[in-house]
Amino acid sequence: MSAAQNIYDNPVFFDGYRKLRENPDSANILLEKPALFELSPDLTGKIVLDLGCGYGKNCAEFYRRGAKSVVGVDISEKMLEVAKSENHGIRFERLDMNDLSALKGKFDVIFSSLAAHYIEDFDKFAEAVSGSLNSGGYFIFSQEHPLTTAPVKGASWAKDADGNADHYILTDYGNTGERNTSWIVDSVIKYHRTFSEILNALINAGLAIEKLIEPIPSREIISRLPGYAKDLHKPSFLLARARKY
Amino acid sequence: MSAAQNIYDNPVFFDGYRKLRENPDSANILLEKPALFELSPDLTGKIVLDLGCGYGKNCAEFYRRGAKSVVGVDISEKMLEVAKSENHGIRFERLDMNDLSALKGKFDVIFSSLAAHYIEDFDKFAEAVSGSLNSGGYFIFSQEHPLTTAPVKGASWAKDADGNADHYILTDYGNTGERNTSWIVDSVIKYHRTFSEILNALINAGLAIEKLIEPIPSREIISRLPGYAKDLHKPSFLLARARKY
Repeated sequence: MSAAQNIYDNPVFFDGYRKLRENPDSANILLEKPALFELSPDLTGKIVLDLGCGYGKNCAEFYRRGAKSVVGVDISEKMLEVAKSENHGIRFERLDMNDLSALKGKFDVIFSSLAAHYIEDFDKFAEAVSGSLNSGGYFIFSQEHPLTTAPVKGASWAKDADGNADHYILTDYGNTGERNTSWIVDSVIKYHRTFSEILNALINAGLAIEKLIEPIPSREIISRLPGYAKDLHKPSFLLARARKY
Repeated sequence: MSAAQNIYDNPVFFDGYRKLRENPDSANILLEKPALFELSPDLTGKIVLDLGCGYGKNCAEFYRRGAKSVVGVDISEKMLEVAKSENHGIRFERLDMNDLSALKGKFDVIFSSLAAHYIEDFDKFAEAVSGSLNSGGYFIFSQEHPLTTAPVKGASWAKDADGNADHYILTDYGNTGERNTSWIVDSVIKYHRTFSEILNALINAGLAIEKLIEPIPSREIISRLPGYAKDLHKPSFLLARARKY
């Protein structure tokens, strides 16, 4: 097991993460979540799986949108503990996204929100997702933007004289592989992949790319929260909808 | 007509461009061309179109690889003059890639090498390409990498104390639209689009993405020509193969 797989059960990380996720002005709530639901098909009567479900907040929303059944899986015991206590009627299972061989059943829609950058072998993951989808089923996922995961030294910005972001310091986009980054705590292991690697993996697994989103903050968001202006230089997230044919 | 459409008929640009393209160590020859041909299907007996054919060098290669017929189109009179004088038996026509409505016939394979970043309306272009492809036909294209076209001030690098590229100065990736850049001459008009815009346009036009390449220089290239090491930080090209279904 890699460090990344355990990080959500680190109590310091867990508390920091919870605060971050509960902030209504977080990039997750303002940018990632709206894009994820924009990519979602009608869930009425659908059998839904959420890979890396965390607290189960998205699972609850899938259920509210008419899903017939929702299964949430995550590697973190602590996440699942919260998920189970807050979402009765949804099935939660502990499972490592690096090894989905224990996953049982077929699904109409598989979601995965902000977890794919923790997966070491994305080709294998894409194959497992494709194998767990019914024909015509959808895979909708988000991850940290490849420009965020690229720099070996971690994502950083050059500032201008006023302390505003002047430009994003881009390095190592073509040097794919493991990244040891600091995020809430030290030594969070992530994996950098280029756009083409991510999309080729999905295509090779029999998933047709239907739509991509790199969310850009609205003028309203930037005027209220000027720190988001830097997302115009370098987006925070990449999302895709792919369909099994 | 935009400035970009005329730029290849500017004599200063034309001479500079010819020198650049004839350099066997150019990024075009070392990185772009091998990737373009890697994406090519078997051309035996195929009806092939090359959009933005320039001197017609790729057209000659398509013919050599067994194409039944090859048509090359370009906006530049000077390019077509060279193309016609050097490639007898291939049909060359003057046509603006921003308006393909005059294009006659259907094709099995449409190529476009390093011209798509000059097109203002890529959605319209993708529709025209799709409409000119036979069912099952391929569109294979290359363009400047979206990270190259992004900065409004033009692509540039921060140097370290030894004068080597430290990092790529990334700005404006999310600010899509016209870019007025200097390349050989001043005021070359190009258009920046994000990855997602480019791929969504192809998908919406009925073209399934089959494979993407962001070429990375080999160790051999970097050891012989150290200047190419910076392509590991920021690739120069994006290539895609899409198929009409």
